[in-house]
Amino acid sequence: MPIITLLTDFGTKDPYVAEMKAVVLSICPSATIVDITHEVSSFNILEAALILAEASQYFPSATIHVVVVDPGVGSERRAIAVKTKHFFFVGPDNGVLSLAIKRDGGARLAVSLENPKYFLGRVSRTFHGRDVFAPVAAHIANGIPLQSFGPPIGKFIELSISEPKQIGEAYEAEVLFTDKFGNCVTNIGEHLIPSNARSVLLELEDGRILKLPLVTSYASVPRGAPLAIVDSFGFLEIAVNMDSAEHLFNLKAGKKVKVSFKEH
Amino acid sequence: MPIITLLTDFGTKDPYVAEMKAVVLSICPSATIVDITHEVSSFNILEAALILAEASQYFPSATIHVVVVDPGVGSERRAIAVKTKHFFFVGPDNGVLSLAIKRDGGARLAVSLENPKYFLGRVSRTFHGRDVFAPVAAHIANGIPLQSFGPPIGKFIELSISEPKQIGEAYEAEVLFTDKFGNCVTNIGEHLIPSNARSVLLELEDGRILKLPLVTSYASVPRGAPLAIVDSFGFLEIAVNMDSAEHLFNLKAGKKVKVSFKEH
Amino acid sequence: MPIITLLTDFGTKDPYVAEMKAVVLSICPSATIVDITHEVSSFNILEAALILAEASQYFPSATIHVVVVDPGVGSERRAIAVKTKHFFFVGPDNGVLSLAIKRDGGARLAVSLENPKYFLGRVSRTFHGRDVFAPVAAHIANGIPLQSFGPPIGKFIELSISEPKQIGEAYEAEVLFTDKFGNCVTNIGEHLIPSNARSVLLELEDGRILKLPLVTSYASVPRGAPLAIVDSFGFLEIAVNMDSAEHLFNLKAGKKVKVSFKEH
Repeated sequence: MPIITLLTDFGTKDPYVAEMKAVVLSICPSATIVDITHEVSSFNILEAALILAEASQYFPSATIHVVVVDPGVGSERRAIAVKTKHFFFVGPDNGVLSLAIKRDGGARLAVSLENPKYFLGRVSRTFHGRDVFAPVAAHIANGIPLQSFGPPIGKFIELSISEPKQIGEAYEAEVLFTDKFGNCVTNIGEHLIPSNARSVLLELEDGRILKLPLVTSYASVPRGAPLAIVDSFGFLEIAVNMDSAEHLFNLKAGKKVKVSFKEH
Repeated sequence: MPIITLLTDFGTKDPYVAEMKAVVLSICPSATIVDITHEVSSFNILEAALILAEASQYFPSATIHVVVVDPGVGSERRAIAVKTKHFFFVGPDNGVLSLAIKRDGGARLAVSLENPKYFLGRVSRTFHGRDVFAPVAAHIANGIPLQSFGPPIGKFIELSISEPKQIGEAYEAEVLFTDKFGNCVTNIGEHLIPSNARSVLLELEDGRILKLPLVTSYASVPRGAPLAIVDSFGFLEIAVNMDSAEHLFNLKAGKKVKVSFKEH
Repeated sequence: MPIITLLTDFGTKDPYVAEMKAVVLSICPSATIVDITHEVSSFNILEAALILAEASQYFPSATIHVVVVDPGVGSERRAIAVKTKHFFFVGPDNGVLSLAIKRDGGARLAVSLENPKYFLGRVSRTFHGRDVFAPVAAHIANGIPLQSFGPPIGKFIELSISEPKQIGEAYEAEVLFTDKFGNCVTNIGEHLIPSNARSVLLELEDGRILKLPLVTSYASVPRGAPLAIVDSFGFLEIAVNMDSAEHLFNLKAGKKVKVSFKEH
């Protein structure tokens, strides 16, 4: 049973997501469809790319990941399908697929979706999710080889995540992502954290300086107390036990923070 | 594998939708259940009817569409099941199924759901979605013929969509639907748009008059610029590239707009 | 086809729920996954426990219910799996499973999840939903006996629902739950309602006293009129036809109300 995942900024009120599922099931009735999320902020390509890079890696081999965050729909932007070591990725060529592709070792084959034989009968100019990406994903699930959908392409648009900048002993870091709990994921990867670090000195944009214990579970500190933790993404996260670091520290995606590590 | 879709105004926080799925899977374990949406505005029959009419048509033949937007639950309103050319529709007889039935060519058979043999053991007066509609849909998926559920009925309640009114060269139109992006779908069908039209003169209720280019993709205009487009529903849509026409023009479902087409 | 349900406070924007589904499908590809809800208020164990107790009972026998409302993740709180007459329950030992277990007749076997063989390769300290509970549920679906996951335990944390207190002819009751429609479910079970009762005298915390007809359907009263009804949970519910009792009467989970029954 092939798995097709969907990741969009469509929300779940409108009929758009259901129409994509209807098209998939019409072409590949045995597909198992899994929603990654449809709550990406409208047109936020970086946010979608980060979520895809995180979630995609846990799926079984041969899963087909479809992403529709597509402000350029109907313009000259290409539609692409990409094969990596474990997965297929289908979506607009605007960078939204690129972080996940990179995390899975890079593209083994990328094609431009140009063969109308595999599109829905009549392709609208406003909804390629339903008319191009969903049917192509379903045909991939049916075993159609990537080459059938269009010519191979050498390049596609790649996003990059900002790297933390080292200044003396500190890092100028950035919040990549805030989750539903208000936990703030930074771009400081685990490998940058000294093994003897026990706390984090955090300097916020508004000048506040906080010393946060570097712990291994949220519940290691009292309710309402701030903490730093390596989270399930493998990044340094700023959090507050059972409260929101996002609100308390006025953080959000893109905000800068200064971080240094202490032995005590 | 039979497909059963669900469309309700229940939201996704409460246990109601899960209980419907539980009942379906208890009776028909092989059913594939697809959510159309559960975010219909509470009791908004017209909104649900429009979403169903749009989404239902993309599903494979024999799909069973269940709708529960049901302010009259427990009153004398009938519960019905209807067969059309391609689909089955199950829900309350309050008009919510009628636009989709009409779009699929009208009813071939309609019955009133009266046979308690196919209901959940004990039918509550407040939740026919779980106790009547879900089990009936699952039994249809199992191949039980429609006649088994109750007597055929000649008529059921039908909604009508307002038609645009022609006044000289202009149309007095209405917004049918606004989506998550703030795009405003009007009741002006594609067939009313002259083939040489290049722009739309739009008069809002507050007296503002705007000239919008009639384009084929959102990205045809700069970010933040307004546009008119034939959307994926086949209707004229008022939109703003990467912004919300709903907010900028103070539009919502039911609002009147005056529209005329220009060659330049 | 085994059924695995998921109930969390993760919301649907972040990749967390999709990662759990990915892990389940990697281990048990034939699983049917059903979302109960992911909109539980953050860390609200009682709310999740009530929703689980309601929804779980409608699922087919052998369904595996996974709950992740887990403020103590990474601390010393145990992770458990419990077998009842009809179901399996998997989650943290913080009481969140206990009301559903009790409703299904109590635990027949409970184990502490300690065998890393059935966890995800590397267990994070922050996301046991993905790293412990999802893989264990999938292995249960594959037929692994509960004893394989860890030692049996005699006790686990149990929540209790407040019982209404009888004061003369009245009950001092509590709102357990408000749903999306603003209907307020109290802790007064059906068995406490005299068979000849025709109306309910309701005293609110702010001193307002209302006489509500005790009816069998919302539509028994005019639009906007208040009512009392035995709801689909089997509890006395305070509601307003097509409006919100939660807002109009300023009620929410935990609020006290005084209720007495009248014959006319």
